[in-house]
Amino acid sequence: MDFLRDHTNKINKALENTELPEYPNNLYDPLRYFFRLGGKRIRPILTLLAAERFDKNGVTDPIQAALAVEIFHNFSLIHDDIMDEAPVRRGQQTVHKKWNQNIAILSGDVMLVKAYQYLNAYSPEIANQLIKVFNKTAIEVCEGQQMDMDFEKISNVTREEYIRMITLKTSVLLGCALQMGAIVGGANSDEQSDLYAYGMNMGIAFQIQDDLLDLYGDPELVGKQVGGDIIANKNTLLMVVAKEAANEKQMSTLDKLSNEPNIAKKIEGIIALFKTLKVQENCLELMSDFYEKAEYYLNKIGLNSSESALYLLTKELKKRSY
Amino acid sequence: MDFLRDHTNKINKALENTELPEYPNNLYDPLRYFFRLGGKRIRPILTLLAAERFDKNGVTDPIQAALAVEIFHNFSLIHDDIMDEAPVRRGQQTVHKKWNQNIAILSGDVMLVKAYQYLNAYSPEIANQLIKVFNKTAIEVCEGQQMDMDFEKISNVTREEYIRMITLKTSVLLGCALQMGAIVGGANSDEQSDLYAYGMNMGIAFQIQDDLLDLYGDPELVGKQVGGDIIANKNTLLMVVAKEAANEKQMSTLDKLSNEPNIAKKIEGIIALFKTLKVQENCLELMSDFYEKAEYYLNKIGLNSSESALYLLTKELKKRSY
Repeated sequence: MDFLRDHTNKINKALENTELPEYPNNLYDPLRYFFRLGGKRIRPILTLLAAERFDKNGVTDPIQAALAVEIFHNFSLIHDDIMDEAPVRRGQQTVHKKWNQNIAILSGDVMLVKAYQYLNAYSPEIANQLIKVFNKTAIEVCEGQQMDMDFEKISNVTREEYIRMITLKTSVLLGCALQMGAIVGGANSDEQSDLYAYGMNMGIAFQIQDDLLDLYGDPELVGKQVGGDIIANKNTLLMVVAKEAANEKQMSTLDKLSNEPNIAKKIEGIIALFKTLKVQENCLELMSDFYEKAEYYLNKIGLNSSESALYLLTKELKKRSY
Repeated sequence: MDFLRDHTNKINKALENTELPEYPNNLYDPLRYFFRLGGKRIRPILTLLAAERFDKNGVTDPIQAALAVEIFHNFSLIHDDIMDEAPVRRGQQTVHKKWNQNIAILSGDVMLVKAYQYLNAYSPEIANQLIKVFNKTAIEVCEGQQMDMDFEKISNVTREEYIRMITLKTSVLLGCALQMGAIVGGANSDEQSDLYAYGMNMGIAFQIQDDLLDLYGDPELVGKQVGGDIIANKNTLLMVVAKEAANEKQMSTLDKLSNEPNIAKKIEGIIALFKTLKVQENCLELMSDFYEKAEYYLNKIGLNSSESALYLLTKELKKRSY
């Protein structure tokens, strides 16, 4: 997103300039490695944008709060990658693959503490408010990750439970990123809540969109194999919605398809079944509801003009669909 | 230690009363389990004692700071136990054994955040100071753990490196516990530094004593098998000092003994070699140096009378030797 290039550069530069000791290098090399892996930097950008909205003269630099959010996000990715046994992250080896699992646990831990160092660098009043929001969010992210792992072993997850899980696992951090920016920028508590609500709802919509794009997105635009979630038998909103709507016979078809070794046949079968069950329409409707809610809050804080970066960002994210 | 029974009870009760959500129970059950495992509670007791020293009327309750220290310690044990593949902790199954590794990683993470919640519950000014010390210490503890893992693969660790490792891995947390108590109690920065230095030096002495007790302690008093570290070929200060003093022939004897399958023969051989190399005397001397330093700082803050709980505690810990 071109209009955010300066913000992205600011974050990348700050991450690269993070002062880290040389020794013990097995602890700090993974941090240096991960900070250079790149990524969209959406979360820290949200912090910067929120701060700029309220602190137009840039009295207090929001970069430390932005870094804390990004570093926390990286910490959670490193630990999640161990749990998911993921070999690749952002096109490179994950930390536990490149080094080993123990190093991935420990360098994740030290990363989390680093995030708190950035937050605690503000004045006591500001730091206290930031850490309060951050603590709540960090705990919720852990709860979301646990729910995600638990759901892998349960077949009858409801859509409410699923949305609760993605809310905790991914969306609250977007809300937190914005609220922290608002705190640094001097926003009042109503403005903080509205920005938080915007971020959280946008996060949920974004995540639902991700699930949809996996099966219905343009493979060239999405940049990955169509039906990856289906092939991996992943629990997505699509699957949850399908199971809610399916009768006994359709459930048994779904069961059979999940064990179908022919991938093309599997995806084709699932798409046909999803069509009968109106899965795409249902999920699109849910997604629109959350985008609408997000826009409601954006409107409420008066950021719904085309000059607002948050407005443009929302539009941009929403557009990435089909 | 009888004179600390009230303090221990206060900590245990507060830990048991920690409010934790029911759900997701796979995330929070390990915390409930670990908080009830017991332990000496030395670190949080240090926080309480330090606070009482300066805040005689108990204006600010040090219990949250004490809990933060203990919870951090528990977090580090849960993650260390994964890394060391330890099956047992305090006579019970470790978290990764009782549940699984992913749950142990994640419940450790949430514990670390919980510690920050307790610290951030103080007034912004106090919280800011507490979190600053805590962050520094938490990072050092991670560095110490990494050094410990690195040292397993290096044969020529010097005593300075070894002492640096135990300082970071275990002793700074005792200093931190005391300094946090001092902060809550309203001590000035000199008093804080002196208490920190006392705790750190006492921690190093204590750790050296642990290494000594493994081989030279009264098995009935120590409560574990004599020579456990030797059997496990663990890198202890004794081994480091022995290797520093050994000539080529003695080094090869040491090498052979480390592969000796007959345990009685192995321990006997090592004890004989250590005697020639004056390992016990050397380590005792080092230990005494650190106990002396600890006592110097205790003296400096005027806590060297028999009415002082910290004085009694030091005496008690020192005594547990032979």
